[in-house]
Amino acid sequence: MIQRPRGTRDFGPDEMDKRRYLECFMRYQAGIFGFREIATPIFEHAELFTIKSGPNILEEMYAFKDKGGRDITLRPELTAPVIRFFVNELTDLPRPVKVFYIGPCFRYERPQSGRFREFYQFGAELIGAQNPESDAEVIALAAHIMEEAGLEEYRIKIGHIGILRKRLSDAGVSPDTVPSVLQKLDKKLYDEARVIMERAGMDGQSMEDVIRITKISGPVSILDGFEGESRDYLLEVANLIETSQVKNLMIDLGVIRGLDYYTGIVFEIDVPKLGAEKQVCGGGSYSLSELFGGDKVFSTGFAIGFDRTLLALEKEGFKAPPRAVEAFVVPVNDGTRGRAFEIAAMLRERKISAEVDLMRRNLAKNLKYANSIGAKKVIIVGGKELEVQSVVVRDMNTGDQRVVKIEGLMDLFSVYRGNGVQGRCGGD
Amino acid sequence: MIQRPRGTRDFGPDEMDKRRYLECFMRYQAGIFGFREIATPIFEHAELFTIKSGPNILEEMYAFKDKGGRDITLRPELTAPVIRFFVNELTDLPRPVKVFYIGPCFRYERPQSGRFREFYQFGAELIGAQNPESDAEVIALAAHIMEEAGLEEYRIKIGHIGILRKRLSDAGVSPDTVPSVLQKLDKKLYDEARVIMERAGMDGQSMEDVIRITKISGPVSILDGFEGESRDYLLEVANLIETSQVKNLMIDLGVIRGLDYYTGIVFEIDVPKLGAEKQVCGGGSYSLSELFGGDKVFSTGFAIGFDRTLLALEKEGFKAPPRAVEAFVVPVNDGTRGRAFEIAAMLRERKISAEVDLMRRNLAKNLKYANSIGAKKVIIVGGKELEVQSVVVRDMNTGDQRVVKIEGLMDLFSVYRGNGVQGRCGGD
Repeated sequence: MIQRPRGTRDFGPDEMDKRRYLECFMRYQAGIFGFREIATPIFEHAELFTIKSGPNILEEMYAFKDKGGRDITLRPELTAPVIRFFVNELTDLPRPVKVFYIGPCFRYERPQSGRFREFYQFGAELIGAQNPESDAEVIALAAHIMEEAGLEEYRIKIGHIGILRKRLSDAGVSPDTVPSVLQKLDKKLYDEARVIMERAGMDGQSMEDVIRITKISGPVSILDGFEGESRDYLLEVANLIETSQVKNLMIDLGVIRGLDYYTGIVFEIDVPKLGAEKQVCGGGSYSLSELFGGDKVFSTGFAIGFDRTLLALEKEGFKAPPRAVEAFVVPVNDGTRGRAFEIAAMLRERKISAEVDLMRRNLAKNLKYANSIGAKKVIIVGGKELEVQSVVVRDMNTGDQRVVKIEGLMDLFSVYRGNGVQGRCGGD
Repeated sequence: MIQRPRGTRDFGPDEMDKRRYLECFMRYQAGIFGFREIATPIFEHAELFTIKSGPNILEEMYAFKDKGGRDITLRPELTAPVIRFFVNELTDLPRPVKVFYIGPCFRYERPQSGRFREFYQFGAELIGAQNPESDAEVIALAAHIMEEAGLEEYRIKIGHIGILRKRLSDAGVSPDTVPSVLQKLDKKLYDEARVIMERAGMDGQSMEDVIRITKISGPVSILDGFEGESRDYLLEVANLIETSQVKNLMIDLGVIRGLDYYTGIVFEIDVPKLGAEKQVCGGGSYSLSELFGGDKVFSTGFAIGFDRTLLALEKEGFKAPPRAVEAFVVPVNDGTRGRAFEIAAMLRERKISAEVDLMRRNLAKNLKYANSIGAKKVIIVGGKELEVQSVVVRDMNTGDQRVVKIEGLMDLFSVYRGNGVQGRCGGD
């Protein structure tokens, strides 16, 4: 048997019901916040990601040469493509540009529990604004998605990369060296961070002070012990977010997000019960457009791990709405097959979900099948009833059967409402 | 500037509104017919497609070796992955298995008008049934999608591959040679077909007879001039489809679909006004599972070219529903910024789509921006009105302004209904 590639997944109907429901839900929430969807290609020039994240990322990507000899890669994330798209074509849109995306991303690493080579991200980017309101807007959207999806246990940790940057800079660490210190601190590799800081000329007290800061987390009031521009900015963002009725918010100065291009606010959302893979969302404010040949434009964005978020919700009992097949139409013999088809078509024309026997099964087997697909009613099309323009309708819940005129059949069924949020892509 | 890869596309917000609307619509129609969505990976082992379509397909695929040395390819189509998935994991589902999919596919060819290297397909497969009803069910779904989407000009052409196969076989053409003749006939390369048929020992009369058959198209009644099993089967399918209130149906014995694995019914949907790229859908009944290591299982399916279908609809004036931003909230000064944020959060909490000034613009510029995003109303948050728990609401359509108590604000707005079909993912 041919297997699917390692680290990838197939999604069956029940799984897809859940996935599309959650996707639809996220799209709906983004719409409420005035973010609009965009999409970019599945693959990009590899350069796009090495410019953003450095050449090391090549090792983790599905990179290959196309038949024209160009270095191509399956996208490992979507912020770089979105900003490339912005630089190429969207700079004339009214600012701020508020966009979101959802789709598969790819990384080449050893497949392990909860980590796949093909994984899905939902993300949003607010491009062209740099102030506490724009940061708060983005974090509020991420928080709103988790809260409205019904997630119970999560925490939103926000920090400001400027607080540590200033300490390091004040202690004489050169701008070139700051990123490598931050990367070590992000991974909590304190000894390695100490080596770099010492080499950069920092004294022991300042070094321990920096490390102590990365361990500070708690309510917004912990910022009382700090001062400076970054602290004031962070406080303003936190206050605005709390205004937005966001729950589970905490300050965490250890949120560093190891990448160089973050300029200010950084944040993560954790679901502790997911264990080692607990981070379901990460983001912050950044500036990337100038790396791709555009003007410098400040942005704030985040990416939500779609698969992990779904996993977290499922651990708390999340289920997609049950499948609804209103009617299963069964001809009692070959002579009524055409009429059975016609009745199914009539129902479908009126937006009533209907199936019809396609296996030429007998009535008993058809009832069993109707049960297996969750059909609410079975319409039995027999010659005797057809003579008086009628069919037999069996309620699969109660087992009751009654003869119904075909002209009145439609009134027994509900219009199909799709598999969206609360019966649609959004709204009650 | 870094460009997107050749032959790919970025989709901006307006374009995505249309695409998601149409996608949502197709998903909804499939649901009415009782088909359920599945998804497979973006890339597969290259073998999957060479087994199905022959080694020549490698030239047209984005094939590459992954870091483990495995031959991988971006999927060029989705029937093979769906059947692979079925063979691997879905054989225990009640039959028939009715599934659909939507997503990007990839081909490596010179980009040209209307043909992209990354393109989107919607498709459905009905697995595990082989009779006129199952074929009719699948064709009716494809037809229903076109009709309900509002497409005016299209034609559904159905044929039966068995009619030509039998002629060739009766004329002594060996089973090994039949596919190459059919491939030439499919491409209307009659002279090349004649060479092969002659070499296979056919006389001139039989050859011309076969070519004449490929040119026969018209209403179902043209089948009156034929006989045989395939003709009877085709007639039965056509009658069932017409029962399903399907319009624009015609018989076309020239529909051949060059691939070897089709076993009976074949069909295509054309939109003549698209010119050379007029085919928007193709499908038929086939047997593939045994090639992938499973038992032989008969199926019927189709793939719709999503991009071309959207293009056809747009040529007829199709538009997605307009974007709806209910409210844009504007603080008149820094002192009311927090309250403006709070009011936006309050609206969003009630599922009312709202945006808030993130650029610290003055009122005049904010009104201009509100207009550019199509906001229906602007809520102006001023200190004087706040003192009496009120705000000013400006109707962007009429320009009327009035003072409204914050507690009664919600009643002025409609709940966000998403960007689905008729306001949801399906239904009225």
